[in-house]
Amino acid sequence: MPKGKLIIIGGSVDRGSFSESPADLQRTLKFFEKGILKRITIEAVKNKISRFEIITTASSIPEEVGDEYVKAFAHLDVLNVGVLNIKTREEANSPENILRLKNADVVMFTGGDQLRLTSIFGGTAFHNLLLDKYENEDFLISGTSAGAAASSNNMIYQGSSGGALLKGEVKITGGLGFINNVIIDTHFVQRGRIGRLLYACASNPVNLGVGLGEDTGLLITQGNGMEAIGSGLIILVDGTNMRRTNITEVEMGEPVSIENLTVHVMSLGDHFDLKTKKLSIDFYKVAPAPKAE
Amino acid sequence: MPKGKLIIIGGSVDRGSFSESPADLQRTLKFFEKGILKRITIEAVKNKISRFEIITTASSIPEEVGDEYVKAFAHLDVLNVGVLNIKTREEANSPENILRLKNADVVMFTGGDQLRLTSIFGGTAFHNLLLDKYENEDFLISGTSAGAAASSNNMIYQGSSGGALLKGEVKITGGLGFINNVIIDTHFVQRGRIGRLLYACASNPVNLGVGLGEDTGLLITQGNGMEAIGSGLIILVDGTNMRRTNITEVEMGEPVSIENLTVHVMSLGDHFDLKTKKLSIDFYKVAPAPKAE
Repeated sequence: MPKGKLIIIGGSVDRGSFSESPADLQRTLKFFEKGILKRITIEAVKNKISRFEIITTASSIPEEVGDEYVKAFAHLDVLNVGVLNIKTREEANSPENILRLKNADVVMFTGGDQLRLTSIFGGTAFHNLLLDKYENEDFLISGTSAGAAASSNNMIYQGSSGGALLKGEVKITGGLGFINNVIIDTHFVQRGRIGRLLYACASNPVNLGVGLGEDTGLLITQGNGMEAIGSGLIILVDGTNMRRTNITEVEMGEPVSIENLTVHVMSLGDHFDLKTKKLSIDFYKVAPAPKAE
Repeated sequence: MPKGKLIIIGGSVDRGSFSESPADLQRTLKFFEKGILKRITIEAVKNKISRFEIITTASSIPEEVGDEYVKAFAHLDVLNVGVLNIKTREEANSPENILRLKNADVVMFTGGDQLRLTSIFGGTAFHNLLLDKYENEDFLISGTSAGAAASSNNMIYQGSSGGALLKGEVKITGGLGFINNVIIDTHFVQRGRIGRLLYACASNPVNLGVGLGEDTGLLITQGNGMEAIGSGLIILVDGTNMRRTNITEVEMGEPVSIENLTVHVMSLGDHFDLKTKKLSIDFYKVAPAPKAE
């Protein structure tokens, strides 16, 4: 059972892309106080004085993205924040970067392309140390968008929303494996991705499908307990009770039929137990979800 | 038990918007032979020589839409086709239009705005005659997009995809009531509308949620048996086994949590029984789904 915590986020953390104007950033500040970044600082082992490393590897504009996260955390008085723009497997094996990771309490994987994360980190010393720290320390791994998608053992990296239930359209490969038995999709409601998750679950119901909306996430403790955080919704697809599918019978590119998947909708404060597959709805929210103005 | 048949379609019938160029229309001709319009002519009581009335009331460009359907049916050698552009409740009570409906074997409601359909037809002599013919004759009602959405007792007429699971966002009102205990959404996969259907089902699980993809439909016989037709996918949301939701506890505009909805994915040739809520997958499709070239 991992001693670390995992926070996966569906993109647009705290409603901010952080590439918006200073005025926009001011406008979104209220989210920060109750939002996901705030929660990350609360869950971090030394709270605000924890050592954070922002890993911008997934992004095609890593400098800009890194700067924005540094600024965003600074708004929450979190100042011990570094940016690790690891661009190659060589850099993911370099002693300097390994030392930085050793000293970190929290890592935050930014958005971008999850295939960059897996192809650059997979099997490197950096990856192994991440797994080790997550297993044995009160270490927090967080990831948004691509950073969230890559955190499970099986990772969706491509597939159109419209064609997702045509056999072979959804492309899956190995992820970074911080959590097992889930498959994660992001920007979920916003990009109409239900088909990708239904397909992924039908192809192997051992994986719980997790569809994270934007500015919405899950805090996962002990590799099992999931708590909804942020302002939006999470859709879970549980294939445990799936009856039949013709996924093996139909040709590539043909529509796939599926009988009996279970769907749950979670929001702030709800809990889900990955082992028992039970949802506990928080009926009278202690802290109301932040609202758009 | 109705003697008539109902065909509901998720939009873009036979992949054609019919407003495309003649070259495009030629390209899509192959779909016609195995597609939904063809199936409509097969199900019509007198097949190709049945009397068809295209009802363009939902559309803001009724003349153009009507012309395109006349042309499309002409490609299938269906020539006894009229266009009924009823624009007011007065016209929906006029003896001339009632007579036209009396003589019709098939009506086809085009796309547009489903609120136009219900606000213009609801409770008129035309509406009553439709219900009567559907109940007592081998009469075929078909509708695409708005025309499909309006065919059930409860009708979704508005609601953003992204915000669909915020309480009150999905707007529902009475439909034309050709079928009971379902609630229909269209352009389903293409527009990422799963949230609308989950919300509608959670608010009253008596209704089976039916999400129709484009160029995809259901043939419904005896008000109960549903057969998937067309080239795409249908998503069904069954709330019969829903456990808990906080829909009554949360404020308007807040995210809604839902436990345990059942989802099925249907495609060409699959059957669903509305009463027993059982899906029968057609494992070895007799007629393969039409493919894009």
